Amino acid sequence: MKTMSNVIKKVIPMLDRILIKRFEVKTTTAGGILLPEESVPKEMQGVVVAVGPGARNPAGAGHLAIGVKEGDRVLLPKYGGTKVDMDDKSEYLLFREGDILAKLE
Amino acid sequence: MKTMSNVIKKVIPMLDRILIKRFEVKTTTAGGILLPEESVPKEMQGVVVAVGPGARNPAGAGHLAIGVKEGDRVLLPKYGGTKVDMDDKSEYLLFREGDILAKLE
Amino acid sequence: MKTMSNVIKKVIPMLDRILIKRFEVKTTTAGGILLPEESVPKEMQGVVVAVGPGARNPAGAGHLAIGVKEGDRVLLPKYGGTKVDMDDKSEYLLFREGDILAKLE
Amino acid sequence: MKTMSNVIKKVIPMLDRILIKRFEVKTTTAGGILLPEESVPKEMQGVVVAVGPGARNPAGAGHLAIGVKEGDRVLLPKYGGTKVDMDDKSEYLLFREGDILAKLE
Amino acid sequence: MKTMSNVIKKVIPMLDRILIKRFEVKTTTAGGILLPEESVPKEMQGVVVAVGPGARNPAGAGHLAIGVKEGDRVLLPKYGGTKVDMDDKSEYLLFREGDILAKLE
Amino acid sequence: MKTMSNVIKKVIPMLDRILIKRFEVKTTTAGGILLPEESVPKEMQGVVVAVGPGARNPAGAGHLAIGVKEGDRVLLPKYGGTKVDMDDKSEYLLFREGDILAKLE
Amino acid sequence: MKTMSNVIKKVIPMLDRILIKRFEVKTTTAGGILLPEESVPKEMQGVVVAVGPGARNPAGAGHLAIGVKEGDRVLLPKYGGTKVDMDDKSEYLLFREGDILAKLE
Repeated sequence: MKTMSNVIKKVIPMLDRILIKRFEVKTTTAGGILLPEESVPKEMQGVVVAVGPGARNPAGAGHLAIGVKEGDRVLLPKYGGTKVDMDDKSEYLLFREGDILAKLE
Repeated sequence: MKTMSNVIKKVIPMLDRILIKRFEVKTTTAGGILLPEESVPKEMQGVVVAVGPGARNPAGAGHLAIGVKEGDRVLLPKYGGTKVDMDDKSEYLLFREGDILAKLE
Repeated sequence: MKTMSNVIKKVIPMLDRILIKRFEVKTTTAGGILLPEESVPKEMQGVVVAVGPGARNPAGAGHLAIGVKEGDRVLLPKYGGTKVDMDDKSEYLLFREGDILAKLE
Repeated sequence: MKTMSNVIKKVIPMLDRILIKRFEVKTTTAGGILLPEESVPKEMQGVVVAVGPGARNPAGAGHLAIGVKEGDRVLLPKYGGTKVDMDDKSEYLLFREGDILAKLE
Repeated sequence: MKTMSNVIKKVIPMLDRILIKRFEVKTTTAGGILLPEESVPKEMQGVVVAVGPGARNPAGAGHLAIGVKEGDRVLLPKYGGTKVDMDDKSEYLLFREGDILAKLE
Repeated sequence: MKTMSNVIKKVIPMLDRILIKRFEVKTTTAGGILLPEESVPKEMQGVVVAVGPGARNPAGAGHLAIGVKEGDRVLLPKYGGTKVDMDDKSEYLLFREGDILAKLE
Repeated sequence: MKTMSNVIKKVIPMLDRILIKRFEVKTTTAGGILLPEESVPKEMQGVVVAVGPGARNPAGAGHLAIGVKEGDRVLLPKYGGTKVDMDDKSEYLLFREGDILAKLE
């Protein structure tokens, strides 16, 4: 039986799935002191890490390009998504494009 | 790990989602005294702050233009929508176009 | 924060929604005496006040014209519709075209 | 507020709805004596009083002609339909075309 | 009020409905003695008595020809179908084409 | 009333249905002794006995050819299918094409 | 009655199903000692063993090519899939393409 390492280097989402890295909200003073956050959004936010090729075209040919790209900051629904373990300590989640609420700027 | 500010400057809704700012209904006399409201609508009202590119065209190409635009006053269903934290104290909600009941004039 | 009046002057329904003003059924004698109603319909009736542009064409382009117009008297289902507050004391409801049962003449 | 009579003269069903007048099954001898019915169908029967323009064509244009016409005797499902009050004492029901089981001859 | 006979002479099923006459399985010896059945199928069987014009073509035009015809012996699901009273003592049922399991020979 | 034999000679499945004969897994030594099975699959297996013409083409014309043929050995889901009595003692089941998991070789 | 061996040599998934061999995650030192795993992903992982021809094209003709191929390492949902017994001791599962979360590299 083939043995594989458990470390995932790269995740290529299937179809219209999008890999999101939840980012931690920190409020730091110039001197580097961590302040308590006052206005943490109730929804989750994250950064797009990888996008799939898109959902299948309902007309039957090819895929529908996904509306976010790597690096986009996005607003996520409170519930949903599938957790994925990656190398670092961040939290990674797979969402379908249709579940992502908005891009944030 | 990258640190980001928690303050959202701009929200660009995905697909057929629409960002709504709920407005407060006030009844003020000429002299500026707040009167108790007598006829508060049972449904929520709001102002369109941002609209997405529209739902995907079922024929597979492009998006379907959304029927409201920034600044439109709209009638919202009593339940539904996703709250989004923004800079000011107003209440912001994301709705899908199909859930918005009507434009108000 | 912008303050708006709570009085809705005009409602422009979204998509295939239709604004209905429920009418009161009265039975009056020639002399103007109100008689008890004997045959009040079990379903709600109403008059079309405003219609939306119509549901989206499933073929992807434009809207599907709605089968009722302002002033039509319609038969409504017992349950459903969304109440909307307007200037007068009448009861206003938003229905989707597909929920309206029939035109009455 | 406009006052309308409660008497419905004509019902024009919306889309694929059909107005049915349930008929009473009577077994009468030549001499006019009512006999007990022996073979009352378990399903409701009725006569088509009015038909709508038909469901919307899924291809997006026009309506799909309805397969019954005024005067057709039809077999109805045991449950379903929406009652409508009309002038006479008969029972009137609105059904969607797809719910009508069969034409009877 | 028009009075109609309760006897149904002919049933013309709507759309993709099919009128089935359940047949009784009998095992009879040459001498006409009824033997207990040993291998009664668990599913209902029947004979097609009448077929509708077929379901609507999803492309929007016309109907889809039904895959059974009058006289075909068919295998029916254990549950489902709508009973219809006819002249004789047999049991009649209306099924949709998609619910019929197979033709039997 | 017509009397029919209860013995089904041939089953012609409707649409995308497939008639499957479950096969018995036996482990026999050269000398013909039955050994206890050690690795019986958890899913049912069977042999295709008859296939229908295929599901209707969603584009509205004709049928979609079924991906298995008579004699194919198939993997079946644990639950589902409709039992059909046939001449021999084997167990026969009707499945829809989409419920069959895989062909086995 | 035909007797068949219970050993499945090859599984050819139907339509958009994919046969997955779950792989065991092992952490071994150079000297071959098995170490306890510290970061086992919460989702199942596996290797694609066989893919079906793809789901039917919604436009009605042919199949939609599947986005993974034999040998691809994939991320699987925690629940779902159908177990299949094969020759070796590994765990095999059938998934539909749409249920596979991502390819892993």
